[in-house]
Formats: sequence, C-alpha cells, structure tokens
Amino acid sequence: MKVLVWNEFIHEKKKPEVAELYPNGMHNCIADFLRADDIEVRTATLDDEECGLTEEVLAETDVLIWWGHAGHNEVPDEIVERIHKYVVGGMGLIALHSAHFSKIFKKVMGTSCTLKWRNDERERIWTIMPNHPIAEGVDESFVIENEEMYGEPFDIAKPDDVIFIGWFKGGEVFRSGCTWTRGNGKVFYFQPGHETNPIFHNENVQKIIRNAVRWACPIKKNIEMGAPWSAPVEE
Amino acid sequence: MKVLVWNEFIHEKKKPEVAELYPNGMHNCIADFLRADDIEVRTATLDDEECGLTEEVLAETDVLIWWGHAGHNEVPDEIVERIHKYVVGGMGLIALHSAHFSKIFKKVMGTSCTLKWRNDERERIWTIMPNHPIAEGVDESFVIENEEMYGEPFDIAKPDDVIFIGWFKGGEVFRSGCTWTRGNGKVFYFQPGHETNPIFHNENVQKIIRNAVRWACPIKKNIEMGAPWSAPVEE
Amino acid sequence: MKVLVWNEFIHEKKKPEVAELYPNGMHNCIADFLRADDIEVRTATLDDEECGLTEEVLAETDVLIWWGHAGHNEVPDEIVERIHKYVVGGMGLIALHSAHFSKIFKKVMGTSCTLKWRNDERERIWTIMPNHPIAEGVDESFVIENEEMYGEPFDIAKPDDVIFIGWFKGGEVFRSGCTWTRGNGKVFYFQPGHETNPIFHNENVQKIIRNAVRWACPIKKNIEMGAPWSAPVEE
Amino acid sequence: MKVLVWNEFIHEKKKPEVAELYPNGMHNCIADFLRADDIEVRTATLDDEECGLTEEVLAETDVLIWWGHAGHNEVPDEIVERIHKYVVGGMGLIALHSAHFSKIFKKVMGTSCTLKWRNDERERIWTIMPNHPIAEGVDESFVIENEEMYGEPFDIAKPDDVIFIGWFKGGEVFRSGCTWTRGNGKVFYFQPGHETNPIFHNENVQKIIRNAVRWACPIKKNIEMGAPWSAPVEE
Repeated sequence: MKVLVWNEFIHEKKKPEVAELYPNGMHNCIADFLRADDIEVRTATLDDEECGLTEEVLAETDVLIWWGHAGHNEVPDEIVERIHKYVVGGMGLIALHSAHFSKIFKKVMGTSCTLKWRNDERERIWTIMPNHPIAEGVDESFVIENEEMYGEPFDIAKPDDVIFIGWFKGGEVFRSGCTWTRGNGKVFYFQPGHETNPIFHNENVQKIIRNAVRWACPIKKNIEMGAPWSAPVEE
Repeated sequence: MKVLVWNEFIHEKKKPEVAELYPNGMHNCIADFLRADDIEVRTATLDDEECGLTEEVLAETDVLIWWGHAGHNEVPDEIVERIHKYVVGGMGLIALHSAHFSKIFKKVMGTSCTLKWRNDERERIWTIMPNHPIAEGVDESFVIENEEMYGEPFDIAKPDDVIFIGWFKGGEVFRSGCTWTRGNGKVFYFQPGHETNPIFHNENVQKIIRNAVRWACPIKKNIEMGAPWSAPVEE
Repeated sequence: MKVLVWNEFIHEKKKPEVAELYPNGMHNCIADFLRADDIEVRTATLDDEECGLTEEVLAETDVLIWWGHAGHNEVPDEIVERIHKYVVGGMGLIALHSAHFSKIFKKVMGTSCTLKWRNDERERIWTIMPNHPIAEGVDESFVIENEEMYGEPFDIAKPDDVIFIGWFKGGEVFRSGCTWTRGNGKVFYFQPGHETNPIFHNENVQKIIRNAVRWACPIKKNIEMGAPWSAPVEE
Repeated sequence: MKVLVWNEFIHEKKKPEVAELYPNGMHNCIADFLRADDIEVRTATLDDEECGLTEEVLAETDVLIWWGHAGHNEVPDEIVERIHKYVVGGMGLIALHSAHFSKIFKKVMGTSCTLKWRNDERERIWTIMPNHPIAEGVDESFVIENEEMYGEPFDIAKPDDVIFIGWFKGGEVFRSGCTWTRGNGKVFYFQPGHETNPIFHNENVQKIIRNAVRWACPIKKNIEMGAPWSAPVEE
C-alpha cells in the first residue's frame, strides 16, 4: 500500500512553537508513525512542483492524507480536479482538522464545511462505533488536553458513518470522525490536528489515522469513470 | 412560494422535433404545470443576463429547477458558486434528467455523476417509498413509453432516500428519484426528461415535480454560513 | 390530526416528587401543550384496557407518543405487535427518553438500545440541522439544567438524520434527537424526559415535540403490507 | 474465521426437484463453496437440537448464514432472541432470499419485510457499487436465467449500502443486495436463492456470498451490551 501525506507546510516555517512540535513538518511526523512493512509512505507539500501531486504520483497512491489551513487557496484548481478524479477512481482521502476548508474536501462534500471554532480547549473524543475498523484498539473515550474546539453545526454532507463525537469543555459537540464514499473512493474526516498542539504525537490519534489508512485503501484504483452509450443487454 | 425554472434553452431552438414538443421551451412547459395559487413561477435561460441567476433573483427563490444538456459549460463558474451559496443557504434544487452533468449538480454531489445511456427505450418507474411526500398520488409504477435509458452504476453521493427506481426494457436499472440535503437546502434528482420525448407532458412526471417543489421548499432561506470564533457557552 | 400520548403512568403514582411535577401525569402535561386547532390529543396508560391501544384507537391515530420506564415488560407482546403493524402502516411514533428501552422502540430499532446513564447532570442540547422541520424555532443550543445523562455509545440503528446532539457536563455526548423511517411510518427518538425533572415544562422541549408531531404525521396511514403474488407488468 | 450455514432443510426433503439440485441440502452446497484455508464452515438445520444454535455454537460463530422459507415459525422465539444477542454482540448475519421473512431478519429490520413475488422469471443483477468488498470480482451485471422474482416496494429499514439492484424481465426491480449494521454486527441481505433454481451453483452468487462472509466477519465478537450507571469522566 502506498500512502501520500500532503501538508501545506506553512505554519512550521512561520511559527516557532509549531516547528518545535514538528521539526520535520507535520507530514513527516505522520509519515513516521504510518510506515509499516506493508505501507510505503511518501510526503509532499505546497512547495513541491505541482504540489507533489502529479498524475504519476496520484496514479500510484492508494490513500492521500491532507493537512491544510492557511494555504487552501494556494492549491491550484487544476490540481484539485486531478485529485478528485483519482478519489472518484478509487484513491482514499483522509482530511485532517483544518482540511475541512481545503478545496478537495469541500469539493467532495458539496457543502460549505463551516463550523464554530476556538483555540485552547479541552476535548474528549467518544467512540460511537466501537466495532468499526477505524475504531480498532481505540479507547471508549480519550482526552486531548488542549485542542482547537470545532463545534456544530458542521455543514458537511450526511456521513455514511459517524465513528467519533467530540465533547469540549466549553460546551460544544462535534462529529469528529466521519466517513463517506465518493465514487470508488473512501473519505474519512478527522477533526483533531491543530498545529500548535502535539496532536500527531497522541497515541490514540495515531492509532485512528493508522486504522483509517487501512480502511481507506481501495480494492481497485484508477478506475475510469465514463458515460458511454450502452447497447441493450436484454431483448 | 417562488420557483425558478432554469433551462439552457438550446435544443428547442436547434431541433425541430423538440420545438414541436415544447413550442415555448421546456421551461415554460414546466412553469405552466407548476403554477398554483400559492406558487409563483418564473423562468430563466442561458440567454438571459447572468443566466437570469442574479443575486436578487436567487435571494427570492425558494426552489430552483434545472434542465441542461449541451450547454453545461456555458454556465459561468461564478454563477455556479452563487447558486451553490443559495442552496447551502436554504434554496431547494431540483435537477432534471441530463442536469446530472450540470456544474451545480456535480458540485453538490462531489462525484463524477457518470452513468450509462441509450436513446429510445421503454421505461417503467417504480415507487420505492410510497408514503414519501414526493410520491404522493403517484402510481405504484408507471410507464414512459419512450425515454432515454440511464443505467447504473450512477456515480452520485449516497442519497438520503431513493424514492423511485427505473426499469428499462433493454435490461438496465437506475435510481431514478433521489434526495439529499446540502447545508440548509434540499436536493432532488429526477431522471426522466429527454428533450425529444414528451416527458414533461406526462401526468405522473408532472405530479412528481409538483410534489418535489413543495418538498424542497425551505422553512428558512438565505441563511448565512460562517465559521466564527465562538466563546465558550459553558464554564 | 389525531395524536395519542401513551405513558405507563407508574412513577407519578409512586414518587411524590414526580406527582408534584406532573399532577395529572406526564401524558396530560404533554397532551396539554400539544393541543391545537388542528390537533386532537388523547391519552392512554398501562391502566387502560389493552393499554388503551385497541385496533380502533390505533387505526385513528396519526402519531403515537410513548413514555415508559419501569413498566416496559407490562406491555403485552401482542399489543406491541399491533402498534408495530400500525407504524409500518403509516402511524408516526415518537419515543421519549427511557422509551429507548420500550418494546416498541426496540422492535423498530432491531438493536439492543443500550446506553450509559447517570442522574442529575447538566445538559446542553445542540441543533445539528437547523433547517429541519423538527428544529423549527429551536435555539442553536439550549440548556436543561438538570437531566438524566444518557451517554454514547447508544446502540440504535443508524438514524436517517441526527437533528440534536447532547453535551453533558460530566463529559458525555449523546445523539439526542434522531429520525428513522419504518415502512410507511416515521419514528423520532428524543432523549430528554426524566420523570424527576420538569422536562416537559421546558419551552424548547415542548417546541421540539410539537414540531416532531407535525413531522411524523403521515400522508396516508393504515396501509396494508402484504407479499402478494404479482403478475408480470411487462412482456 | 468460523461460519455457520443454517438452513431449515425442509424443501430438500419434500420436493424431488430440490433434492436433485441439492442432494446434501442447500446448507452443504453453500458450506462446500465457502470452505477455505482460513474459513471453517459448519452447518445446522431445524432438525438439530436447539436448531443447532446453542450458546456455545453462536459464541464461536463469526458469521451466520440463514436460509429459511416454509419453516420460519418453527424457529423458537427464544432462539431468535439468542441469535439477535450475538449479532448485536458482533456476529455477522447473511440472510438469503426467502430469509427476508425469517424471524431474525425481521427482528433486525424492525419492518414488515414484505415484497412482491412470482416464480420463474429471468433476472439480471446489476452491481451498483463496483468497488465495495462484497462486489469484488463480480461482473458489472450478470444473469440468473430462472429465479423467483422479488419486486419493490421491499419494506426494509434503509440500507447502509445498496450494492446490487435486480432487473426482472416481467418489469420489476428490487434492491437485491443490501447492508446494515446492527450493534456490533454486520448484516447483508441477498435476494437470489429460490430452492427450485440452481442458484447456489451460480458462480457469481458464490463469489458474492464468499465476499459477504469476509465482509461480515467481525473484528470483535461476543461484546456484552449493557446500560450501566456511569460516573462522570469530567469534572
């Protein structure tokens, strides 16, 4: 299985507290905990040519993980179209945290993806579907001591499944882990992941993203979607 | 309630057989059977300034009906963004037949919207959810003697409800009537409606579109979707 | 529209604090705030013959509201079968609070309906789908100062829609307002309603139950469900 | 993985044409094509003590396959409760053909499970979700030359996914392959399987049932579902 971790890689270069948490960027932190005997992980950022999202790279990719925040608009529409083609063709997509406002996530949702937010809140994530593959080995509930609150209403398309719901000390709730299918591809959105918090060092978060990668891996990918004239199959 | 029937209005001007079926355009045919004491219906086409889809018009519109085929690309992206904003804000959207490939339907689906097709086939539409408002007064099944076959797999987002399934004499099946919610707006896709067939003169089709208009009419519209910083509501 | 409010009517007769809150029983409290020019409301309890749920009564009922807790087992299976027949035939069903363990709700769910619980907790209910009919006129979020905590995981069938999510001060979350369709009937589960709290005197709760009654009212009811041999409709 | 194929085993003993197709019963025909290096398959019938569905057997079973028709009522309610407990606890359930009217399938659906029917019809099954695990290696569409027609409306709970839709020469359609989750268990209903047709000798049918078994196999099973008092997890 080939996974590509895409991160805009902006905050790490501008905010010291983020560089301290993620010296090699969030993308490498995630790639490091994802690598396994049967999982090959690459990374790419906004700085790469074509954002590192060439036809060749995407054609090989089973699951694409996306982290973006300040640079959503820097991703060219043409590349977003290309990513979308591959998702519909079978490639899995995992959108993390502020990627709710990424062009690709908004494209697969077809909604505004708006929500409420506030930094520095205590969160407790509950597992709603304990026997779902993405929840394998995850506690009934776990705490993230400091995270950016995301609050409902979250304007997403109705999820196929809501696997996690988040509780925030300030009173809010959020559908923190949701799945969808788009064409032949699977999509998972996971809410934790604010750059100034050590979220990707959290064991439960790592477990969930590992599970999600295996869950999102397609049986077939690069499936061509066409609208052909079709002869009758019955007389 | 204010309904806007949008039709690209291309085929009626180019193909005599279509002009014969719809002398005032499909949009006026549809508008005519929709008008009621409590329903005011306007029409707009590709020929109108801004496609007739100005901010003022959309702000007033409760339900937008869309028919397009040859001219999907002629609708400016900027106008599609505007329509989408109003759908998410509450405006209902009814996409008819070849509108499956319209920019606005593809945008709310987030998928490729591909399917199989073949002209001049006999279709029978079955009501899967007889007690759904959109199926009110509709027969258990009804025939469209000559219609363009649309066949599965139909690459759409998972519908909230599949209200009608179509059977085609040549062997195909299709999820012919589907609903979704996008933000505050309701979306209904209805498969029949090929321009060279008298589909919009069919009683059952008229009943379904009338029902769908009432179903899609929002409680509130023009709801602003934002992502505001939010203070805690609990201590 | 004819509504029947069914309450086991046990606690009011045994616990003084409940009798104080609901001198005429929870059923009459609910019936009182439901009555309208176009809504006729009856009540029935465990004490009535056949639990007040005769064929004649159910055949006339558009929406059945259910409150039960200590007496779930006292409702004869035969009557539960009867209620189920009418739900599938079109009658709406609204299950309140501890009715999650009622025979009829468990029957339509097909799951165990288990959850976590704890008395005397502060709750805040969030509206996830602000433009849903059941949420009409309901605040973005509202507080119930003292309620019985119900916590996830809640073993229910996947809801068609999750309209409300509850936040509890003790850290839990819950899918507090959910809808389903069963046959021709609509089902709404609403979590608040513990008997020792003045829940049914709460304005937001009243508004939601009123909205839910209108939402659950069927277009047609008493639809016979059969599995007939059917002749071909096509040659 | 341990699979149990349950068949009422009535028709094979009464109708010569069925005995001819399935000399060792449908259960052994299915068990034979399911066995693999990593899949151990047992069978049980109505004739066995406790229908072969003891606590010990169910506790070991990962996936239960069910075929029933004339003997639905012969399965004691107590055993149906037991099966249901294990499904909710994680055991997968695959209901084949006339099992739509089995007590266990009706229990997990919560609906009447009614449909139309007619023997001896030509069917073509379409794959709606080609990249779903249950559709792996299955053709875009395949024919069953002679099968019992099952026609919509099919009164089931809304499926999580509709993987196959059937087309019948006599004009009907049917949601032929559907999935649900009930508690920790996965449920798959597959429509083909009339006893007087060689359905279980059909390659595509075999492939689908094999895929379904792997899909329905739980990560964890025998999960106890309780409704415990729960202490606060947050102050």
